[in-house]
Amino acid sequence: MVKGNKYGTHRVIEPKGTLPQPALKISNDTVIFDNEILIDVDYLNIDSASFSQLKEEAGGDVGKIKTKILEIVQERGKMQNPVTGSGGMLIGRVKMIGKDLRDKIELNVGDKIASLVSLSLTPLKIEKIIAINPDIDRVEIKGKAILFESGIYAKLPEDMANTLALAALDVAGAPAQVKSLVKEGDHVLILGATGKSGLMCSYMAKKMVGKRGKVIGQARNETRADFLKKTKFCHETIIADVLNPINVLEEVLKANDGVEVDVAINCLSIPNSELSSILPVKDNGIVYFFSMATSFTKAALGAEGIGKDVTMIIGNGYTKNHAQITLDLLRESDTLRRIFEEKYSN
Amino acid sequence: MVKGNKYGTHRVIEPKGTLPQPALKISNDTVIFDNEILIDVDYLNIDSASFSQLKEEAGGDVGKIKTKILEIVQERGKMQNPVTGSGGMLIGRVKMIGKDLRDKIELNVGDKIASLVSLSLTPLKIEKIIAINPDIDRVEIKGKAILFESGIYAKLPEDMANTLALAALDVAGAPAQVKSLVKEGDHVLILGATGKSGLMCSYMAKKMVGKRGKVIGQARNETRADFLKKTKFCHETIIADVLNPINVLEEVLKANDGVEVDVAINCLSIPNSELSSILPVKDNGIVYFFSMATSFTKAALGAEGIGKDVTMIIGNGYTKNHAQITLDLLRESDTLRRIFEEKYSN
Repeated sequence: MVKGNKYGTHRVIEPKGTLPQPALKISNDTVIFDNEILIDVDYLNIDSASFSQLKEEAGGDVGKIKTKILEIVQERGKMQNPVTGSGGMLIGRVKMIGKDLRDKIELNVGDKIASLVSLSLTPLKIEKIIAINPDIDRVEIKGKAILFESGIYAKLPEDMANTLALAALDVAGAPAQVKSLVKEGDHVLILGATGKSGLMCSYMAKKMVGKRGKVIGQARNETRADFLKKTKFCHETIIADVLNPINVLEEVLKANDGVEVDVAINCLSIPNSELSSILPVKDNGIVYFFSMATSFTKAALGAEGIGKDVTMIIGNGYTKNHAQITLDLLRESDTLRRIFEEKYSN
Repeated sequence: MVKGNKYGTHRVIEPKGTLPQPALKISNDTVIFDNEILIDVDYLNIDSASFSQLKEEAGGDVGKIKTKILEIVQERGKMQNPVTGSGGMLIGRVKMIGKDLRDKIELNVGDKIASLVSLSLTPLKIEKIIAINPDIDRVEIKGKAILFESGIYAKLPEDMANTLALAALDVAGAPAQVKSLVKEGDHVLILGATGKSGLMCSYMAKKMVGKRGKVIGQARNETRADFLKKTKFCHETIIADVLNPINVLEEVLKANDGVEVDVAINCLSIPNSELSSILPVKDNGIVYFFSMATSFTKAALGAEGIGKDVTMIIGNGYTKNHAQITLDLLRESDTLRRIFEEKYSN
């Protein structure tokens, strides 16, 4: 066999010149290239926007959902919902590793992995759908998938339930980015500190700032603030309305001896919180937006409007070793693990 | 008098707790606080979206536009178009500097300046509208405006026409950001290198990378590529379709000895160019989005989809000394100055 393109463009059938994700049809031939990995797939975790659409179209009929999934994969060579454009992730076991990759990656035939790139770009061939569990958007199949050289994945650990690992991997980018951004002695604001990624980021930030630093976690009400205080993930907890930047600024200044913070991390899931992230940060500081509800123009014009010379970073879902870094946090902190088990893994 | 809030919240009348930009009404009292600057205004350069709306509403009648502008400023205390939400900038002379700022800023009474924060947040009182020039969205007035402590402005230079200075100041953030991002020896890709901000960024990048570095400018066709080559602002010029990431990657690799670049700077004005900016950059490299057409989610999910560990930065319209840095480029390069005089200042 020969070497394929790192990003999988060699498998794009239509239209030529695009990447596998925007492509309409890709090849799901199970003969792999020298820099590909073949997976025996056990489960597809369909993205929730996609699964809702499939359920609705099928009027809730599981048989019809099954037929539709088979049709999509037959037609496109990947499980990308044609209406929502989205995919999901898969769980499976490594069947074969292309010879160019064998000594370069820490993966062996037989390892159980979760793919961390979207199904919307992953070549997939379904032999048979075994079962569909509509409550958790999960499809049990017999089939094969291919990971490209650029594809990212995580070995599923032996010491925790798959559901727990998946819940953590879902937000893996955030704590890994915090690890590389936050320096010892920094004063850090976490907006949305009580949510899934907010908790991970708070815990990681507190580790990174050390004894001289400070982590300030924002919660939206008393109940959530009490919950956050009990975790001890932050040095200070503030209650503030993220839609009111002046309120956020004032509460941060109160909690930080009247000084602006070095880094603000936005882990919120609601729009219009750009200025609340920018305003409490000192000049030459960093604002890190992990929220998918962030507006590029509101951030850019917001900072200009108040004359703030801050570096604003678009949260990248991928960082080197992000899966390992994140799973290690669950191993390290019983509190974090217990919260994730209770709230996010089912 | 007393000290006001750095961001001008002390002048917000309605609704309380907001910043001056989103506020419906702010105070345009011309008695200044100790950390404010009073300006004798000569011209308002109304933002083009706003002026188009005013023209349309008035059916092109200059008298009606005049009445409408007076009404808006009377009601809101600032020239913020209630339909578009946008403002513009002003040109005037410094009338008075609050005592807390006098020794802190390089500005003297009588200096001619352009405000670089939006009129949508600047307290303004119009005594009289002298003339309206609808062709260049310009309103000549007698009136006063106030700049807050956080307000940014530029002294208009003696050695160039106001129109030339304004054209350059309009994109001042970009080259100033390039100056701080790009390091000696870097290989840099400029997408949209033939446009207003692209030319500035190319010129600045070539200065910064020095002899060991390389600047690769992208143009969309032969004509534009020829124009770019003649400027000598880039070491290499490529012709590539920014809506085709693979095409961009291939052309960059050809021009860069098969290696990805350290930094990509997006100066385009069209949407869907996120992947074309991310793909040609090496791991741990930087992608800088200056384009207002950038989609936050497309950038975030795009990088994740191809497993790229790059730092993606939201272009901030403001950086310390950005006006000075940018005007100095026009003084330094006759070629740049001539292009700006011919193409952008009228």
